[in-house]
Amino acid sequence: MTAPQPTTVSIFIGTSLDGFIARPNGALDFLPPDGGEPHGYNEFIASVDALVIGRNTFETVLAFPKWPYGKKRVIVLSGKPLDFSKVRGGAVEQMSGTPAEIVGKLAATGAHHLYVDGGITIQRFLRAGLVHRLVITRVPVLIGEGVPLFGTLPQDIRLHHVSTQHYPSGLVKSEYEVIR
Amino acid sequence: MTAPQPTTVSIFIGTSLDGFIARPNGALDFLPPDGGEPHGYNEFIASVDALVIGRNTFETVLAFPKWPYGKKRVIVLSGKPLDFSKVRGGAVEQMSGTPAEIVGKLAATGAHHLYVDGGITIQRFLRAGLVHRLVITRVPVLIGEGVPLFGTLPQDIRLHHVSTQHYPSGLVKSEYEVIR
Repeated sequence: MTAPQPTTVSIFIGTSLDGFIARPNGALDFLPPDGGEPHGYNEFIASVDALVIGRNTFETVLAFPKWPYGKKRVIVLSGKPLDFSKVRGGAVEQMSGTPAEIVGKLAATGAHHLYVDGGITIQRFLRAGLVHRLVITRVPVLIGEGVPLFGTLPQDIRLHHVSTQHYPSGLVKSEYEVIR
Repeated sequence: MTAPQPTTVSIFIGTSLDGFIARPNGALDFLPPDGGEPHGYNEFIASVDALVIGRNTFETVLAFPKWPYGKKRVIVLSGKPLDFSKVRGGAVEQMSGTPAEIVGKLAATGAHHLYVDGGITIQRFLRAGLVHRLVITRVPVLIGEGVPLFGTLPQDIRLHHVSTQHYPSGLVKSEYEVIR
């Protein structure tokens, strides 16, 4: 008998230098077109077993010209009914529950590397102490207001800096591991 | 007759990864002791003609065991009376006015490289479009709430990334120039 495989929860997100992941109306026009030059997203997403997003992010990406997650398994967290009929080609499921319950349900189905995305969902998982790795790419612009990446916490979260890279367009990507 | 020397306004500040420069009560205990390993502050401050701070920052540093700005000329912005009697050894003056007026007054006295510090004062100068250079050092911790570095803006401020360095303790320092 082998020990259960541990789950890793990762965040991989772009923000303005002042820490916003979207404008107040959800617009992402301050991010570089097509995500900017390659900065590791493809390699990251290839390592992920499932994405976990909230209803807001689901509705945002549903309005994109193309479903952005390919065939990757996507979990949308919501306690209310969701309409998946407009998802073209994606593998989408609905779940509800606490972050710990979501991690447990997904581990039981073999998903051990989770990519948590969207402001509210990221904040819920951070508050629950369930995030292991953060990869934050700063876009060189101040937008003044918007949807914040981070929110309140029950206590400090100390981080270990793993690496930082910068790119010709001015993107600065830093990776951190949460210290437990 | 020579053209008037242009003024450069710089910001050089440390923040938590979630963008706070102090805890809600003003505490700075999440910053590394003694400012962390050398990351360019001494070289920066040597290039500065005058510091410009607000009343809050003045009262915070007045409570430090030692006046932190040495003999450097310090301008405290306030429309109300200030008590400078407890400043030991520092060169402190009071001014009031808009950011543009402060820059003009200081230029007239030969101060052409200004270091603007403290959340409210930094935000006022950013909103007035008077900041040229930002050097931001991220400390690897999330604190959840506090005094934010950035605030609302009348419009986006686009930045040119100049350089980024990281340090063994996990500090990540990025320098940006404001694009005009």
